[in-house]
Amino acid sequence: MALGMAEVAYFLYRHAMRYNSTSPKWFNRDRFVLSAGHGCLLQYVCLHFASFQSVQIEDLKCLCKLGSQTPGHPENVVTQGIEVTTGPLGQGVANAVGLALAEANLGARYNKPDVAVVDHRTYCIMGDGCSMEGISNESASLAAHWKLHKLTLIYDDNHNTIDGSTDLALSEDISARFEALGWNTITMDNSEGNLDAFKNALISAHSETRKPTFIRVKTIIGKLSKKEGTSKAHHGTFDDDDVKQMKQRVKWDDREPFHVIPMVYRETRAQTDIGGRLEQEWHSKLNYYQNKYPEEAAEFKLLLADRMLPGWESSLPKWSMSDPVDSTRGYSGKCLNTLAKVLPGLIGGSADLASSNQAYLHNLGDFKQPDSPWGRNIRYGVREHAMAGISNGLALHGGGLIPFAATFLVFSDYMKNSVRLSALSHAGVLYILTHDSVGIGEDGPTHQPIEHLAGLRAIPHLLLFRPADGKETAGAYKVAIENRSVPSLLALSRQKVAANVEGTLADAVRKGGYIVSNKSEKELPEIILIGTRSELCLCEASANVLRKEGTRVRVVSLVCWRLFDRQPRDYKEFVLPSSVSKRVSVEAGSPLGWKEYVGDEGIVMGIDDFGSSGPYSEVFNKYGFTEENVTKTAKSLLTK
Amino acid sequence: MALGMAEVAYFLYRHAMRYNSTSPKWFNRDRFVLSAGHGCLLQYVCLHFASFQSVQIEDLKCLCKLGSQTPGHPENVVTQGIEVTTGPLGQGVANAVGLALAEANLGARYNKPDVAVVDHRTYCIMGDGCSMEGISNESASLAAHWKLHKLTLIYDDNHNTIDGSTDLALSEDISARFEALGWNTITMDNSEGNLDAFKNALISAHSETRKPTFIRVKTIIGKLSKKEGTSKAHHGTFDDDDVKQMKQRVKWDDREPFHVIPMVYRETRAQTDIGGRLEQEWHSKLNYYQNKYPEEAAEFKLLLADRMLPGWESSLPKWSMSDPVDSTRGYSGKCLNTLAKVLPGLIGGSADLASSNQAYLHNLGDFKQPDSPWGRNIRYGVREHAMAGISNGLALHGGGLIPFAATFLVFSDYMKNSVRLSALSHAGVLYILTHDSVGIGEDGPTHQPIEHLAGLRAIPHLLLFRPADGKETAGAYKVAIENRSVPSLLALSRQKVAANVEGTLADAVRKGGYIVSNKSEKELPEIILIGTRSELCLCEASANVLRKEGTRVRVVSLVCWRLFDRQPRDYKEFVLPSSVSKRVSVEAGSPLGWKEYVGDEGIVMGIDDFGSSGPYSEVFNKYGFTEENVTKTAKSLLTK
Repeated sequence: MALGMAEVAYFLYRHAMRYNSTSPKWFNRDRFVLSAGHGCLLQYVCLHFASFQSVQIEDLKCLCKLGSQTPGHPENVVTQGIEVTTGPLGQGVANAVGLALAEANLGARYNKPDVAVVDHRTYCIMGDGCSMEGISNESASLAAHWKLHKLTLIYDDNHNTIDGSTDLALSEDISARFEALGWNTITMDNSEGNLDAFKNALISAHSETRKPTFIRVKTIIGKLSKKEGTSKAHHGTFDDDDVKQMKQRVKWDDREPFHVIPMVYRETRAQTDIGGRLEQEWHSKLNYYQNKYPEEAAEFKLLLADRMLPGWESSLPKWSMSDPVDSTRGYSGKCLNTLAKVLPGLIGGSADLASSNQAYLHNLGDFKQPDSPWGRNIRYGVREHAMAGISNGLALHGGGLIPFAATFLVFSDYMKNSVRLSALSHAGVLYILTHDSVGIGEDGPTHQPIEHLAGLRAIPHLLLFRPADGKETAGAYKVAIENRSVPSLLALSRQKVAANVEGTLADAVRKGGYIVSNKSEKELPEIILIGTRSELCLCEASANVLRKEGTRVRVVSLVCWRLFDRQPRDYKEFVLPSSVSKRVSVEAGSPLGWKEYVGDEGIVMGIDDFGSSGPYSEVFNKYGFTEENVTKTAKSLLTK
Repeated sequence: MALGMAEVAYFLYRHAMRYNSTSPKWFNRDRFVLSAGHGCLLQYVCLHFASFQSVQIEDLKCLCKLGSQTPGHPENVVTQGIEVTTGPLGQGVANAVGLALAEANLGARYNKPDVAVVDHRTYCIMGDGCSMEGISNESASLAAHWKLHKLTLIYDDNHNTIDGSTDLALSEDISARFEALGWNTITMDNSEGNLDAFKNALISAHSETRKPTFIRVKTIIGKLSKKEGTSKAHHGTFDDDDVKQMKQRVKWDDREPFHVIPMVYRETRAQTDIGGRLEQEWHSKLNYYQNKYPEEAAEFKLLLADRMLPGWESSLPKWSMSDPVDSTRGYSGKCLNTLAKVLPGLIGGSADLASSNQAYLHNLGDFKQPDSPWGRNIRYGVREHAMAGISNGLALHGGGLIPFAATFLVFSDYMKNSVRLSALSHAGVLYILTHDSVGIGEDGPTHQPIEHLAGLRAIPHLLLFRPADGKETAGAYKVAIENRSVPSLLALSRQKVAANVEGTLADAVRKGGYIVSNKSEKELPEIILIGTRSELCLCEASANVLRKEGTRVRVVSLVCWRLFDRQPRDYKEFVLPSSVSKRVSVEAGSPLGWKEYVGDEGIVMGIDDFGSSGPYSEVFNKYGFTEENVTKTAKSLLTK
């Protein structure tokens, strides 16, 4: 009889127990990911037996209870020992590729011929559902391209998904697909309940030095239960009868629920003891490394501690009035490259738009094994979803990496769930999303983001910055790097904007919103114009026209809504006094959400339609984003 | 020398010219999709030569100009002859699968042994970028599973993407991958500029009766130019020198730009003449069909005209107070099944959650060739992105199909770009998205949508409905089916809610928002509670408590924001009188956007954090969605 996944996973997790040590911060610790959540109970059981104290028998009894350590899908921020948050299908595969990539890159950069301070394997269990999702194919293609040979993917081939047999929607040869992608593939079709075959497959994977390994394990879902082999075992609960039958079949029928015989604890404790010794060995290695390679060790330990060199932020470029005009993507590229010199953790890439996004670290190489595994530029190809999922793995590896991921803002759509998971799992990914409005011009409406700012701003915790110039771009980078437990997203322009708009401040970005001009508290403005990015300059230009006519106009930059919302009431009142009800917001995107800042009497200048193909200035003009129209709109309010 | 894509595409489009006839409404017309936009100029050139009058020489000169017929990426709603809108990579592959699926299904349902009224092939050209996107793998897997043998995918293998050679990020064997997926694959590596080989590959594809065909054509990008074979030819422009060289190499250097020699028009006109005859033949077939099979013909012609049987809407279920309580997903399932009986165009499925979504048409079979090609349930497997892209193809096929696509609301993230393209390309897809808030309960935060309502509401034109009960669900279906040029999205509950909330009205859904209780115009309410879905019931319960204490409370349902926004000012003022500034909105999701409706003094009850795993009532309680808390919040406003 074929294996049940519980047997396979327990076997693997028995190994994993060595690595679920008291400290997650050792780098030769193997990593284990269960893609999707269907095995979460199993994972919790294994964590219970590992040396972590986070999952107790009582926690196991509280599965899916509010506030428990054992939620319905595994969350790294809730349960110690869970590496990544993987409920939505396919994400875990991408995360695992990210973990393996982190290992390969850090190993190449810090290991020495005589001592390996980063040296571990990454295992991922994937079900049929994960295999169908596009993100898993994208990620698997990259894993093979990068030759991540320390990555092992175990395919739980139980022939069932929620709707029933996989015959309903799956007839491909998955092993052959992985082989075509460039993987070492092992199929265990006739495993006949033989864990030795699985063990041998793992050993074979270890000896592979050029390819990641895909092990297809034919399993039986709900093994031994009445629901055995059917999709009914996929979710839902086993009734009393069923549990009774299962217990009988394993000769366990005289046991109470949640009973663990001491032998199991003894056996698992032996594994964690081995783990303890391995961890100790690694610390000895680190000591040796520190003595022999003090310079590298200093940098490595900073990464390990997720800390930055003091004063790193002073490297950020500053712009003077005389600097040539560039796009905010251009200013971003400069920030990224100066930061890369002082932040060894900074690593990342673009989904085939490196030069368009200006998201390339010059002279720091492209990551690829075996030629340049130290490279800090990652070439993702046209695979946005994998890029974001892999970035989450890089961020959560614990190796102090600061991943950046770049594409056009409109294609944030392709990776939205992974961006959400960055926020949910505290992965401090830096999203560099350029070509951020109808300002993209000729490419037309399929490439012009409209609703994207609103949709991304609504993701809890995420910090979305839409900087107006070079200064605000640098300010956004500073806040992003300082806040590594949340993802940050920079929405950047294709078209050129001033490097140094009068009145903008890099340091004010941390407040999310601030007064750019007319700061007087004594004499309140008659009207407030609120903008982001190049539209802030429209506000300023319009303000200058209105001022010449004697109107008191304040201009406010609202570069990051969430940070502004978090400011004390006094500060918000200072920037946007409630007595000034005449307000206009100017942003070339969905108006959704702006009413919060302009109030009942205010006017939101936005775009609630798809854009148009054409030269960007003409497109801006078509949608009313001109100084003249801002002035006209402001006047309509003033004379109301 | 290998082929240039222009040669291949022109060859194909020469064939296509037969089908770009004066009327898009004939069903034996072959379909052509260029996935992604990189060949848009080429496509416009071909359309110019075809019998469509939409693209003139002057239009070709206006490429990417504002308001032109020739935008930067092809848009079906701008240029006649463009089947689908395909700028973002990979979408076209999914669309093509949808077109082929439409043909297979309609053919199976309406063709007779002696006459085929639906019988055409679908061709799609795909580049390297499209091949890397997850959506194309998902779609290709389904095409093979469904045995869409009339689908031919031509892979423009030019070894370049924007960032440079595909060596940067692609090392898989794409032909082998398609073979593993179950495709008939043909590789033209040594085509040596031989169009005959391509022609033979097409003939071979035609003889395949069980598999879709993948033709890999080794091409040279920017053939004959100085940028030949490099990524510089991918985008950007050819300079004068380059154009001169190309012209010299094809002995064309004495010609003005945009000059067409009469022979070309003669040749292409010959093709469109053939097309005209084919179209005429089809009309004769249809006449024959109509005489011999009047009943089927009547239904078929309704589909062709995108029209519904008169009175179809009366089939929608009505609920009485005595009906058993169900979830809104349950009410939706009833609507869908009653509609399926009167709307032969209704076809669709779920991404492996058919029973959870209650999105299954009972007794109407699963689509699969050759066994049940007439089946109107589509089993998408866990492939949300492909599902939405394929649905766009189904909707834009022109065969009157009304596709529905179902999954959990949180997984709208996986298909967001395709949902956007539904709106952009006027594809009236019906999205049935269940488990729509923290009300999903135990599955936890990875499965609980928070920001999704906001992000989806921001998509221009899309109609998002969040019905409160059975009546509003039926009302939403009615509006959705009536508005076939925009996608509609129903956000539905997992948990049970009343079938028939007192005061709700199916017919009022078309207005987007309306008064549920306290309609008096004479005596204005002191406070207005605004809700959607089950939170509307919280509002009503709270209102009843407050009323007992003597407060005049109005409850408003805001089931579809966009439709409410479109109402005349008077109506909006009637529902939400500006003099009533005390307002509370209650929705278990991101607060983003609600300020528009509650105003400066109002309070938005929402969730700006990820949810929690636990029984749904406890989770609702945790985030303050209880009658007590709504009452408390309302009182805090009343006593302010």
